Amino acid sequence: MSILVVGSIALDSVETPFGTAEEALGGAAVYFSYAASFFNRVRLVGVIGKDFPEEHLKLLEGRNIDLAGLERADGATFRWKGRYDYDLNEAHTLDTQLNVFETFAPKIPDSFKDSDFVFLANIQPGLQLQVAEQASSPRVIACDTMNFWIEGAYDQLRETLKSVDILIINDAETRELAREPSLVKAARKILEWGPTTLVVKRGEFGVLMFHGSSVFSAPAYPLEDVFDPTGAGDTFAGGFMGFLSTQEEITEAAIRQAIIFGSTLASFNVEDFSLNRMKTLEMQEILDRFAEFKLLSHFEEVETTG
Amino acid sequence: MSILVVGSIALDSVETPFGTAEEALGGAAVYFSYAASFFNRVRLVGVIGKDFPEEHLKLLEGRNIDLAGLERADGATFRWKGRYDYDLNEAHTLDTQLNVFETFAPKIPDSFKDSDFVFLANIQPGLQLQVAEQASSPRVIACDTMNFWIEGAYDQLRETLKSVDILIINDAETRELAREPSLVKAARKILEWGPTTLVVKRGEFGVLMFHGSSVFSAPAYPLEDVFDPTGAGDTFAGGFMGFLSTQEEITEAAIRQAIIFGSTLASFNVEDFSLNRMKTLEMQEILDRFAEFKLLSHFEEVETTG
Repeated sequence: MSILVVGSIALDSVETPFGTAEEALGGAAVYFSYAASFFNRVRLVGVIGKDFPEEHLKLLEGRNIDLAGLERADGATFRWKGRYDYDLNEAHTLDTQLNVFETFAPKIPDSFKDSDFVFLANIQPGLQLQVAEQASSPRVIACDTMNFWIEGAYDQLRETLKSVDILIINDAETRELAREPSLVKAARKILEWGPTTLVVKRGEFGVLMFHGSSVFSAPAYPLEDVFDPTGAGDTFAGGFMGFLSTQEEITEAAIRQAIIFGSTLASFNVEDFSLNRMKTLEMQEILDRFAEFKLLSHFEEVETTG
Repeated sequence: MSILVVGSIALDSVETPFGTAEEALGGAAVYFSYAASFFNRVRLVGVIGKDFPEEHLKLLEGRNIDLAGLERADGATFRWKGRYDYDLNEAHTLDTQLNVFETFAPKIPDSFKDSDFVFLANIQPGLQLQVAEQASSPRVIACDTMNFWIEGAYDQLRETLKSVDILIINDAETRELAREPSLVKAARKILEWGPTTLVVKRGEFGVLMFHGSSVFSAPAYPLEDVFDPTGAGDTFAGGFMGFLSTQEEITEAAIRQAIIFGSTLASFNVEDFSLNRMKTLEMQEILDRFAEFKLLSHFEEVETTG
């Protein structure tokens, strides 16, 4: 089994009520890869500039992340600068410098084309489709997107969705994509457009998953403080796809467990800036927190209530 | 076992994106009583004016709700007028006429003083404490409050909380009461002030319960449309206390089940205006939806993930 991810690699500068990080390792493909690497080997496709610190590449290689699809372009690496206030659900972008990411056209190495699990992180929907079409025998293609593409490339996004099995987006994106204020109705609509599973990320309120006529509601882990939410969504996707890639059959039960693994990884990631918490994370901690999620949502059935 | 509730009885006029209701039966004590009456006999203490329609009293009596504590005062009944937009989590108050409710001083009939389960709906905290002190042998005293009292009667509310076992409020109230932006930290703080259990209502995001060092996260039922959210919180409290009152021991497991029963009742209530959906609700429907809540939040444990 192998996991392919295509997406951004960035240097992030972040302010939160708890502190600041300057030019720290970030980007959707990076957060995804690191989280997924707890479960399987990951193949990363992305672009960096000449200024990208070598130590970050060493960190990823040390996690058994295959960088054969890493393009080193002339110019500067993608930079994002943002601030979070006490409402850590909302990022306020202070500055975006796309740099080499602006003209990113993913090139999938031949050695990556047999990947079983493909994650199309948030890039232009037409590029997402090109990547999906190059996978020779994918078992699961999952994808993310954002309001920018929903508003600016709606038709192309709808076309891409025809090739997607699992769409992983947040609740505002779900409503905007379906043009429908009821989340449940929006989800049902999207499930007619290609994806067989819709995973709706709701930040501190957990995750809702729609699959056929079934709905699964996963709690969020009740952290005392969210230190830095940057990368939580992609870390979730990495844990989710990572666990799924260990499963012989992609059943609904496996998808539900994958959502808890994704939530578990994300809950660790937000405990510190950048990938700092992930760097010291052990598999046993992940399994322990998975068990805590079980206790968190457990209640007993009732026989009769008189 | 018997349940006592003290709180408002109202005639509500409500606009939602789905329609309007004029002078419909409402009020915290009414929603609570009706929901709790599925489980046990309820004793209601509240005040109405001379203009209160007789049919509403017949409806409550028909549910085996004891109206011996109902005061009929000179003047008009409490009226509330509000509007909900597509974000049905937020009520916009258009008009409030307290009328006879403005000088409401609850008088607990002697025959009500042996009540086991007491719910202090949202009224002035000093009045809540007076009611609590008149209960001769309460097993559980639960209470609600709102930003108006947190801001205007903080010390009195803190005093009342010393006599309360279970506090049932929403997430904004939790943060404001504790003066702490982190919900988890706010909850821990409040649990040092008297209540042994804090139930935090989060609307479409479900319920978080804090009890000792334990946390329980209950999902919300994924309705296609919330028709009218008025009374959802008090209906929740009614289902919650109603179920608890059937239990020999108030264990954490029972509290968790009670939260699901409360959520179940509330999910039905928001399907129509006023008590319209409740009027046709059957116990079997409640049990069926309880089982749906189980499926909604179920995932399997993992042995090992390789």
